[in-house]
Parts: sequence; C-alpha cells; structure tokens
Amino acid sequence: MTQWLTSLTTDTPQEGFELAITLARKGVGYTQTSAEVREKLRPDYAENADSLTLASQVIAIHFQTVAAANNYWK
Amino acid sequence: MTQWLTSLTTDTPQEGFELAITLARKGVGYTQTSAEVREKLRPDYAENADSLTLASQVIAIHFQTVAAANNYWK
Amino acid sequence: MTQWLTSLTTDTPQEGFELAITLARKGVGYTQTSAEVREKLRPDYAENADSLTLASQVIAIHFQTVAAANNYWK
Amino acid sequence: MTQWLTSLTTDTPQEGFELAITLARKGVGYTQTSAEVREKLRPDYAENADSLTLASQVIAIHFQTVAAANNYWK
Amino acid sequence: MTQWLTSLTTDTPQEGFELAITLARKGVGYTQTSAEVREKLRPDYAENADSLTLASQVIAIHFQTVAAANNYWK
Amino acid sequence: MTQWLTSLTTDTPQEGFELAITLARKGVGYTQTSAEVREKLRPDYAENADSLTLASQVIAIHFQTVAAANNYWK
Repeated sequence: MTQWLTSLTTDTPQEGFELAITLARKGVGYTQTSAEVREKLRPDYAENADSLTLASQVIAIHFQTVAAANNYWK
Repeated sequence: MTQWLTSLTTDTPQEGFELAITLARKGVGYTQTSAEVREKLRPDYAENADSLTLASQVIAIHFQTVAAANNYWK
Repeated sequence: MTQWLTSLTTDTPQEGFELAITLARKGVGYTQTSAEVREKLRPDYAENADSLTLASQVIAIHFQTVAAANNYWK
Repeated sequence: MTQWLTSLTTDTPQEGFELAITLARKGVGYTQTSAEVREKLRPDYAENADSLTLASQVIAIHFQTVAAANNYWK
Repeated sequence: MTQWLTSLTTDTPQEGFELAITLARKGVGYTQTSAEVREKLRPDYAENADSLTLASQVIAIHFQTVAAANNYWK
Repeated sequence: MTQWLTSLTTDTPQEGFELAITLARKGVGYTQTSAEVREKLRPDYAENADSLTLASQVIAIHFQTVAAANNYWK
C-alpha cells in the first residue's frame, strides 16, 4: 500500500480543507477500490444536489479533525 | 488555485456563521467544479425541505469548527 | 445584513437550546432566502416524521456548540 | 414557555442518556408544536427501521453533550 | 426502569466499542419499546446495506463518547 | 469473542485511517453477523455513489476518535 498520509499538519487552513477532501475521497477509495467503477459513479453524485451536500458533509467532518490537529492554525 | 481561506478567525459569531456557510459551499464546489451545473441544481435543494435541512446540517458541523477556532468568541 | 448573532452565551441551558434552534433555522434561511418559499415548504417537513428527526439532529449539533461555549452552564 | 431544561447535570450516565432522549424529542417538539400531529406521525417512525436508527443518532449526538457536561461521570 | 448504564468506563477499547453498540440499541429501544416490533423490523435493516451503514454511524458517534470517557484507553 | 481491538494507538495517521475503516466495518459486522449476507450486500453499496459517501462518513467519524487518541500524531 502506498503511503498517502504521513501527517495532518498543513501550512494553511486552505491546505487543511484540501486534505479533508482527500480524506473524504480515500474513505470512498478504500471501500470501492476500482477507479473505473468510481469514475462511472461520478455523474450520479456530481449532478445531484443532495449527493453533493452529503459529500460536503464528509469533508466538514474531516475538516474538524484536521483543524484540531493544526490547533486551528492559530 | 485562488486563496480563499487564510484564517478561521472572525470578529463576531455571525461572521463565523457566515464563514461556516462558505466552507459548506466550498465542499460542494470542489466536488462539482462547474458553476453552471451547480446553478442548475439550485432549485433541487433550495425548494426541498429535507435538502435545506441537510444543507443546514453541514453548516452546523463547520460552525462547530469555526466556533472552536475562535474560542467561542468569549 | 441585520445583526442576529452577537454572542453564544446564554443564561440557561434552555435558552441555549433555543439559540441552537435559531442557528439551525438560519442555516436554512441563508440557503433559501425567500421567506415565502420556506413557508410553503413547512408542511413538507413539519408533517413528516423523518424530516422532523433530521431537523432535531441539526439542533443537536448546534446545541453541542452552544453548550461548549457556555462551559455546559456549570 | 415552560421551564424544562435547567441543568445538564445528572446523577448517573443512565439519567444522562434519558436527558439526551428528552433533548432529541424537544428538538422535534419545537419544530412541530402540535402534539396531535406528532402523535399521528408516531407509527411512521416507530415502525420503520431506518427512522428508528435516525432517532437513535440524534440521541447519540445529545448524549455526547450531556456526557461532556458531566465530565463523563468520572 | 432497570439500571442498565452505571458507568462509561470499560477495561478495553473493544469493551468500549461493545458499550457503544449497547447505547445505539438503547436509543432505538427507548423509541420503540416493543421488543416484538423491533424483532419484526430486524430484516429491514440487517439485510439492507445503507441501513447497516447508518447503524454503524450511530455506533461511531457513541464510540466517540465512550472513548473520551476512557481517555482513549491510554 | 475474538480480541480485535486492543488499542487506538497507531504509528502513523495512515494506519489510524485504516483503523477507522476497521471500526466502521465492525459496526456493520456486529449488526449483521453473517459474513455471507454482508458479502451479498456488497454490490448494493460499493456500486452506489451515495452509499459510498455514507460509508466514507462513518470512517470520518471514527477517524476523529482515532486521531484524538493519537494526539493527532503530533
């Protein structure tokens, strides 16, 4: 397994937000390991309002973790 | 990529709430990058009660983070 | 924009709970700015069991924030 | 408005759990103020597996708050 | 009412996880008090993928509480 | 019952993320104990966009716990 997560520390809140997005996607990637299937499913959520809100929610949960890890970049 | 998030600190709780809304929308924006598609989907959630509640939930999760970052504006 | 949130501090847990309700509703209000549309949607969630549970969940998340801001009124 | 929540402190974790249930129900009660309507909706969620899980989730979120308020009854 | 929850302290993380499961089930049990109805509903969620994920989510929320109560068994 | 969770401590954030996945799956496994049924349900969620997002959400919640247990690997 490739190393993809060595630290939760980021330089800026924005990079922290982008790490949260990575974490949300990895949660999907570990569950559905086929990139081909994931790609095929993309329109199902990227063009559906509630699916997008749900995706945004997972990002929000991970962002809580990343923000805490960075002491809120204070 | 434009800088859009340089700090979680806000002057007031209300500005913190509005930052939480921005974060919730950005979570959608990174997932569906086309502003045109997002605009097209708007009536799907803005005129649906459960979709609005779900959107409010994502804001609530981000508001937890922003409030903690600001030591609850105490 | 009117000032509607100047502090997370409340005198009692009950007022904190009511503030959490306000926050949940504001999350909806910023997303659907038309009071008329929101009013029209009211029966859709107020007479649906799962919608009410979902609304209660958003209140619960905000109540966590408000309770922490008030050091749990201890 | 009646006083129904004067403290988050409880003697035991079980009473704290029961307070979390009260909070979850109050979240519904403030949204749908008619006891008659709430009663009518009862079978819709009490006899539906996912609705019960969702209700249990709201309790879980409130129990986090109550447990923290009681320093986990340690 | 029987005493069923006297402490959130457990000897091991695994026992803490099992306590989280108990808490999730109790949340259902207080809402639907008939064991017969709950039993009848069992196939509805135990043989449905999303229902199982939702059940797992409630456990996850309670596990946060139990883990914090045990200082993460450090 | 086999011992499967003796510690929340991991060497790296990535191992912590993988532990979060294990916890999410165990939540399902305790609810549906038949591996055969779980296997049969796999396509229902692994090929459904919202189901995958929901699964990712449970992982996110557990990752909060594991990250806190490891003091965010700082």
